[in-house]
Amino acid sequence: MEKTFDLLALGELLLRLSPPDNERLTRGDTFTKQVGGAEFNVASGASLLGLHTGILSKLPANDVGTYIKNRIRFNGVSDDYLVYDESKNARLGVYYYENGAHPRKPRIVYDRMNTSFQQISPADFEESMYASTRCFHTSGITLALGDGPRETAVTMIRKFKEQGALISFDVNFRGNLWTGEEARVCIEQLLPYVDIFFCSEDTARLTFHKEGTQEEIMKSFTKDYPISIVASTKRTVHSPKVHTFQSMIYSAKNDCYFTEEPYRNIEVVDRIGSGDAYISGVLYGLLSDPDDLQRALEYGNAASAVKNTIPGDLPASDKRELDSIRKAHTATGIQLEMDR
Amino acid sequence: MEKTFDLLALGELLLRLSPPDNERLTRGDTFTKQVGGAEFNVASGASLLGLHTGILSKLPANDVGTYIKNRIRFNGVSDDYLVYDESKNARLGVYYYENGAHPRKPRIVYDRMNTSFQQISPADFEESMYASTRCFHTSGITLALGDGPRETAVTMIRKFKEQGALISFDVNFRGNLWTGEEARVCIEQLLPYVDIFFCSEDTARLTFHKEGTQEEIMKSFTKDYPISIVASTKRTVHSPKVHTFQSMIYSAKNDCYFTEEPYRNIEVVDRIGSGDAYISGVLYGLLSDPDDLQRALEYGNAASAVKNTIPGDLPASDKRELDSIRKAHTATGIQLEMDR
Amino acid sequence: MEKTFDLLALGELLLRLSPPDNERLTRGDTFTKQVGGAEFNVASGASLLGLHTGILSKLPANDVGTYIKNRIRFNGVSDDYLVYDESKNARLGVYYYENGAHPRKPRIVYDRMNTSFQQISPADFEESMYASTRCFHTSGITLALGDGPRETAVTMIRKFKEQGALISFDVNFRGNLWTGEEARVCIEQLLPYVDIFFCSEDTARLTFHKEGTQEEIMKSFTKDYPISIVASTKRTVHSPKVHTFQSMIYSAKNDCYFTEEPYRNIEVVDRIGSGDAYISGVLYGLLSDPDDLQRALEYGNAASAVKNTIPGDLPASDKRELDSIRKAHTATGIQLEMDR
Amino acid sequence: MEKTFDLLALGELLLRLSPPDNERLTRGDTFTKQVGGAEFNVASGASLLGLHTGILSKLPANDVGTYIKNRIRFNGVSDDYLVYDESKNARLGVYYYENGAHPRKPRIVYDRMNTSFQQISPADFEESMYASTRCFHTSGITLALGDGPRETAVTMIRKFKEQGALISFDVNFRGNLWTGEEARVCIEQLLPYVDIFFCSEDTARLTFHKEGTQEEIMKSFTKDYPISIVASTKRTVHSPKVHTFQSMIYSAKNDCYFTEEPYRNIEVVDRIGSGDAYISGVLYGLLSDPDDLQRALEYGNAASAVKNTIPGDLPASDKRELDSIRKAHTATGIQLEMDR
Amino acid sequence: MEKTFDLLALGELLLRLSPPDNERLTRGDTFTKQVGGAEFNVASGASLLGLHTGILSKLPANDVGTYIKNRIRFNGVSDDYLVYDESKNARLGVYYYENGAHPRKPRIVYDRMNTSFQQISPADFEESMYASTRCFHTSGITLALGDGPRETAVTMIRKFKEQGALISFDVNFRGNLWTGEEARVCIEQLLPYVDIFFCSEDTARLTFHKEGTQEEIMKSFTKDYPISIVASTKRTVHSPKVHTFQSMIYSAKNDCYFTEEPYRNIEVVDRIGSGDAYISGVLYGLLSDPDDLQRALEYGNAASAVKNTIPGDLPASDKRELDSIRKAHTATGIQLEMDR
Amino acid sequence: MEKTFDLLALGELLLRLSPPDNERLTRGDTFTKQVGGAEFNVASGASLLGLHTGILSKLPANDVGTYIKNRIRFNGVSDDYLVYDESKNARLGVYYYENGAHPRKPRIVYDRMNTSFQQISPADFEESMYASTRCFHTSGITLALGDGPRETAVTMIRKFKEQGALISFDVNFRGNLWTGEEARVCIEQLLPYVDIFFCSEDTARLTFHKEGTQEEIMKSFTKDYPISIVASTKRTVHSPKVHTFQSMIYSAKNDCYFTEEPYRNIEVVDRIGSGDAYISGVLYGLLSDPDDLQRALEYGNAASAVKNTIPGDLPASDKRELDSIRKAHTATGIQLEMDR
Repeated sequence: MEKTFDLLALGELLLRLSPPDNERLTRGDTFTKQVGGAEFNVASGASLLGLHTGILSKLPANDVGTYIKNRIRFNGVSDDYLVYDESKNARLGVYYYENGAHPRKPRIVYDRMNTSFQQISPADFEESMYASTRCFHTSGITLALGDGPRETAVTMIRKFKEQGALISFDVNFRGNLWTGEEARVCIEQLLPYVDIFFCSEDTARLTFHKEGTQEEIMKSFTKDYPISIVASTKRTVHSPKVHTFQSMIYSAKNDCYFTEEPYRNIEVVDRIGSGDAYISGVLYGLLSDPDDLQRALEYGNAASAVKNTIPGDLPASDKRELDSIRKAHTATGIQLEMDR
Repeated sequence: MEKTFDLLALGELLLRLSPPDNERLTRGDTFTKQVGGAEFNVASGASLLGLHTGILSKLPANDVGTYIKNRIRFNGVSDDYLVYDESKNARLGVYYYENGAHPRKPRIVYDRMNTSFQQISPADFEESMYASTRCFHTSGITLALGDGPRETAVTMIRKFKEQGALISFDVNFRGNLWTGEEARVCIEQLLPYVDIFFCSEDTARLTFHKEGTQEEIMKSFTKDYPISIVASTKRTVHSPKVHTFQSMIYSAKNDCYFTEEPYRNIEVVDRIGSGDAYISGVLYGLLSDPDDLQRALEYGNAASAVKNTIPGDLPASDKRELDSIRKAHTATGIQLEMDR
Repeated sequence: MEKTFDLLALGELLLRLSPPDNERLTRGDTFTKQVGGAEFNVASGASLLGLHTGILSKLPANDVGTYIKNRIRFNGVSDDYLVYDESKNARLGVYYYENGAHPRKPRIVYDRMNTSFQQISPADFEESMYASTRCFHTSGITLALGDGPRETAVTMIRKFKEQGALISFDVNFRGNLWTGEEARVCIEQLLPYVDIFFCSEDTARLTFHKEGTQEEIMKSFTKDYPISIVASTKRTVHSPKVHTFQSMIYSAKNDCYFTEEPYRNIEVVDRIGSGDAYISGVLYGLLSDPDDLQRALEYGNAASAVKNTIPGDLPASDKRELDSIRKAHTATGIQLEMDR
Repeated sequence: MEKTFDLLALGELLLRLSPPDNERLTRGDTFTKQVGGAEFNVASGASLLGLHTGILSKLPANDVGTYIKNRIRFNGVSDDYLVYDESKNARLGVYYYENGAHPRKPRIVYDRMNTSFQQISPADFEESMYASTRCFHTSGITLALGDGPRETAVTMIRKFKEQGALISFDVNFRGNLWTGEEARVCIEQLLPYVDIFFCSEDTARLTFHKEGTQEEIMKSFTKDYPISIVASTKRTVHSPKVHTFQSMIYSAKNDCYFTEEPYRNIEVVDRIGSGDAYISGVLYGLLSDPDDLQRALEYGNAASAVKNTIPGDLPASDKRELDSIRKAHTATGIQLEMDR
Repeated sequence: MEKTFDLLALGELLLRLSPPDNERLTRGDTFTKQVGGAEFNVASGASLLGLHTGILSKLPANDVGTYIKNRIRFNGVSDDYLVYDESKNARLGVYYYENGAHPRKPRIVYDRMNTSFQQISPADFEESMYASTRCFHTSGITLALGDGPRETAVTMIRKFKEQGALISFDVNFRGNLWTGEEARVCIEQLLPYVDIFFCSEDTARLTFHKEGTQEEIMKSFTKDYPISIVASTKRTVHSPKVHTFQSMIYSAKNDCYFTEEPYRNIEVVDRIGSGDAYISGVLYGLLSDPDDLQRALEYGNAASAVKNTIPGDLPASDKRELDSIRKAHTATGIQLEMDR
Repeated sequence: MEKTFDLLALGELLLRLSPPDNERLTRGDTFTKQVGGAEFNVASGASLLGLHTGILSKLPANDVGTYIKNRIRFNGVSDDYLVYDESKNARLGVYYYENGAHPRKPRIVYDRMNTSFQQISPADFEESMYASTRCFHTSGITLALGDGPRETAVTMIRKFKEQGALISFDVNFRGNLWTGEEARVCIEQLLPYVDIFFCSEDTARLTFHKEGTQEEIMKSFTKDYPISIVASTKRTVHSPKVHTFQSMIYSAKNDCYFTEEPYRNIEVVDRIGSGDAYISGVLYGLLSDPDDLQRALEYGNAASAVKNTIPGDLPASDKRELDSIRKAHTATGIQLEMDR
């Protein structure tokens, strides 16, 4: 029997407020109004590439929540499993973000405590949901956001796994939400369920106390746990407006590493969500052709590189665009500047 | 010895987010970024009229708090007694507001719980402050916002009174913050300290169980408590874009009522804060010429009427403008359309 | 067996380009970018009220088409039955609209010929679709847009009817698309299939040569054809910014007329789509409670009145808002200016 | 021999800076950048109606002057007789304008001294110019702006008259530029040259010490001077957003008065320049059909009424629009809300 | 006898719609509204440099056409030879453009079929026009846009040539309008009339099957046809935001090649129209000093390089600016950062 | 006795009008409305770093002046010593600025003659002011703006010096205000009073006819005059969007030079005011820790480098931000891209 969804993701949705261009949070008369959330970013990117995706989350039952729901749909993600908080103090988390320009770094102010999402509970969802998807994704941010989200994530990982879904997990360590040690203890309990594991080299070393080469570290996770695939990205920040991006994937089944040339000198417009876009590309690759990990890596890299050029948290590139970017990335000789 | 300030006001500061023009909260890509807060609105209006005013409040020690501080100064209000919340989850309250258009009413979504302001405490302020002002103002909203603000307000009312300041209090009842009965009990404990009392007729009847004519009600407060002046406004809402406004003041000392012709068919651009603007005009009148209550009422009415024509919570009219509006309000014969 | 959709609508989608505020088409540096289309407007309004709706249309397979698809989803309407035109000259129709202000009328420039929608054909849709909805809606605009749309509309009306769907039809006469006589001949062939018929009094007289009172005219359609319900709206334009709106519904089954007090002095922000919003309210009423035509009429009137206050073609009011507007419309005594 | 221009106008061009919508000059982060100038407004309106018009003025030879030149051309007015000030302190006059809303009047701040226009001189123009137009127009503002503009105006009135042009003159009294007595003395010296004279009733009484009815006053000018036509407008300001407008024309040749029903309850967006638009309509009427003064008056009234609905100083209505407004103004019975 | 115009250009005018900054076509609420068209871009640039230029084109007789006409005038180009399409389905072509950022290329969607321009015909223009200009310019785009434009272009080239105008032609090959072979056959029929020929090296090789060095290719055109001057540009696209630009000119008369150092690392804001700006600079050079081809090349290079830094299709640099850029381009030693 | 202010600065305030982004002065419909002025920029930057600062200036007593006053307060600078010009032709200076992009340089148009500031006089200020500050700052621009400002500056330097304030002076040579020789003669008369002297190497050579190395030049000023500290900046303009910045400080007391690594490849958003920001950082350093000149230089460099990334004339970085930038500037090893 075919499953309704390719990918369901659990995570918080945030209202993002940003001053335009290079204006500062401390000044100015307008905010750009956007939506973000690590796991939603992943679901959006995968939907653009052709997967049928949905977001599992809890929103306040007010106009702000409705705005978020509208945006979720705009981005091609299903709102079938959104739940609403009708309580008096229902609220959506907010974050304030301003762009950087060398030597000024981007700045971010979070206001994401006491939210409706923190009231989420496994009881908000019906059991039939667990059989409806081929893959489930969440991240360490959800685990760090409090008891409700953590319990919901743990329950869901277990139940989706039972129903045969692949479990994808991104460490996504945020030092302002929990300590490295809290993260390690919590995540290690979940790793026995995880199939696809996203963890940067730095986090592996600092949080999981891994040692050795990048390759050795990636492989070690698959030895300790029944993880099939480990993916790791590396971003070089030349300046807030110029980055280089690359990644590596390790497949335990084949004991094999995959990589390609970095995307160099990306003209960064908005780097937020580019890590999530990477995951969307890799998951698209894995779910559409599980045996071609090189292709999955290339979609991940292209999705991430191009996301940096797009305002807001959310990716906005369909498969046609990523294919054209992948092609240009590896092409030699003269390339058309644009198609006309 | 002369006091540094004419007016100090205690109250919460909120970030106001509004879609432009007639756009809706549930749609659109931008928010107008503004500042408001009932007591701050009063202090701003009074400052524009020439009083030396300051705001007592607690802000998060982050970029959003700095923005608010900058705006406070922009509006001519002193930030000498602002205190900052350095805690990790420091936050500023937010409210979302959209304009109405008949038959659609304005809409408002509050997100003002768990804020830094709710952490305010009398201990945040030094004792010398209490001798620095001729008048202290706060409102029922502050009382309703939790233990910290309530304790701070009660303490301040007592201490400012001890140091000889006039105490101004606006009931400003908000049904989404507390019940009428909670409000009555709390406020009645403070009325023995209040000199200038702002209370609408409806609130007097519903919350304080007053009966009789408007005049009888106003007078009764001064019989029950040592209140000198009671002021009451009346707004007739023809549509969200057309209001009529009038008010009455009762002076216990002279046993005398003051009123004037209503401002009719005001072209409403933004009605939020027009009640606070009224108070700013009345307090300006009282503090600049305590014996001329008719003048105080007229400044109050003009300040309120014109505030409705100005975007945002905050008044933006100086004494010259209010004088010209007062003059035009009572003039007969041809009036210049504009001065050029 | 339950049907997936409550309402499917067939119609063209247009990119609407408008100068901001009162700016003119012939000047200025920006356009507001919006989406409209008579039948889509109906589906959007009904979706906001809680129906499960979808739009049947053909879009160019390019970025402009993708924008439209995203907006359709944003508005809660299903894109399951959108089809795409991959041909080289695929295009979306455009219309340019500027607001009026007395004595200047609104202006509109259409550029809707040679579009992808005109290439639509019954063959673009699979047969299973016809069993998926409780109601099908289209309008005279679709019939007037060329052979493809007309053949598709005729086929769909017949096939949906066969599968038990209610057929809703709005005359929506546009003199710039066809003559009254062309419209009459074409529409009369379809009336044998129509259950719910929307036709203004003027159009009934001018196009269908009806005579007598408004009541007689409405009833006469149900005598000539097996129409169950006839609805007719009346708009009084005091100025481009002030309208009064009312309507009447006739039920053939009960031989009964329904009406209510007009919505007077609506503060018009954007009148486009308010007729479509009326239909969305009536269809919501009929599909959610087929026996209460008074309620259907009231939802229609409220939906239309409030749409006039909202920028763009599309309604933006959910059931909660319409209920509050209906309540205020019939209330006597003091009303709260806003809820806070 | 045919003349190249129908109308040449002499006058200052100003950069107008306005906060958007109802925002105030004392706040906000943006200005709308527009161009205005009484005589240029006249030339623009007449050009839109089909006359070949040009502006005579002096601009700074810098980027700001170039912007003005571009705008002049955008509005269909010839820049053939613009002259440029290459001096170091060349500057364009600026004025700041904010909209009003009852009870707040519009506000205006002028910064138009020491401008390049004040350096204008008859020597800036070649003699051939004087034979190139059928009509020359200027106003009292130009006379009041200093010796250079005044001498230029006086010289031009004389020379254009010599070459057979009709001389049109608008008193346009501005109390912030000169006194009434200064204006009277200066203008009375020019009236022997004037053919078409625009003067409001108030100015006639206050500045020219006229007495009697409006009709008597208008006629008296033609007795004192060889003026052919006197036109006078009357604006009733219900509020900054609602005006009523009417006018009267007196023809000395026929000893006949022309008028029509006022345009009532105009929805005012921007009233600046509506007096100039009136003149543009009257001059268009007179120059296109000198014998039909009723038609000239109607074009003047329609041009002025509709200008009030258009942002900025400049009219934006062509003959087709004015014809449709004139028609609607006198029509009885049902009118189409818009044409589609 | 002196000719009225230095340059007349025949070509389509398009409404360009672009999302602001780095926003995408598939999202967002606004479009920037601009005007473009290859030949109009050339005429605009040449007008800024001091030539008297006009555009020959056909516009819809509606508000959109009027907007275009206003913009043409704003840019200093004559509208004397614009003709208008009064037909019911008159339309202006539209194109949608979004900026790129590495690794995302710019995107463009054309909607330029069935336009009023495609209805253009030689009969729209009077014979006297052909004697009014020193130079006539058009491009391969006009030839590719259908029978009307092609016939008009062919006729005009012939008639202008007969009247002694220099004929300037830009191949401007667009693969989405016609095939290379179609282009070659059509253009080769016109080359006997062409005096100044603009063709890139790539197009020469691919479309005209030329071989050899760039120099040999350029010279070969002058051997095959009586072409006096061949100009060829080369753009190196480091990223969508960084280009390097250079060009070469060959003079058949002197059998001589002209070039200069490339403009390196141009900070590209909007590259559209920079090729047309090149032509405007070269034609300005040739028409103002026919014997100094080095100067013509330098104006072309400067005009093109700087156009890349300006939003929209149209150049915005006058001779003073290009002179200052040319000077800085060849200067050695310290340069002022700006002039103040 | 403690002084009220750390720093008072005398200088003109200007309204700055800029087209958005890369738009040109000669086009477009909006201006960004900002405030600037060399000495005010210094006071603002120092205030952000924690000093108590005020501006001494004269503003027109109109809405434009009020806007400036509000902005001064917004930026944390005291308006205690602002004076207002109530005269009829009171005006604020304006300057127009557009950004550059290689190969197009930024452009600036000044309109700063006949201003209220030029009417400033020592008599506008009370004597008590001279004892209220630890440091006084002004620049050569003030000296060049006419007799009023010059006399005021000279008087103030003398009187503040008498009252024990440190005198800070920035040459800030502007060739469009005076000649180098005029500047030299005027400034040399003031140097006997100056303690802290800011002068670029180029100006030292060209205006003061200094010779030798940069170090020799700086030292020579302290030999000729009783100057304690000389600071000199050097900007390398790679393009309008990429600069490198460095500086050197010489201390006469220690006969010692201070410098550090340049800030390389700054991503320039708006370079105006970055020189003033440098001074604000150096003065903050000197006034908060007079003995640590290396620290003063580092604050100066960081303040200037980061100012380039901020729109408008004014700095917007507090001490926390500059500390983080200083730290990153000297750090080795991995740096966090942002803090979250």
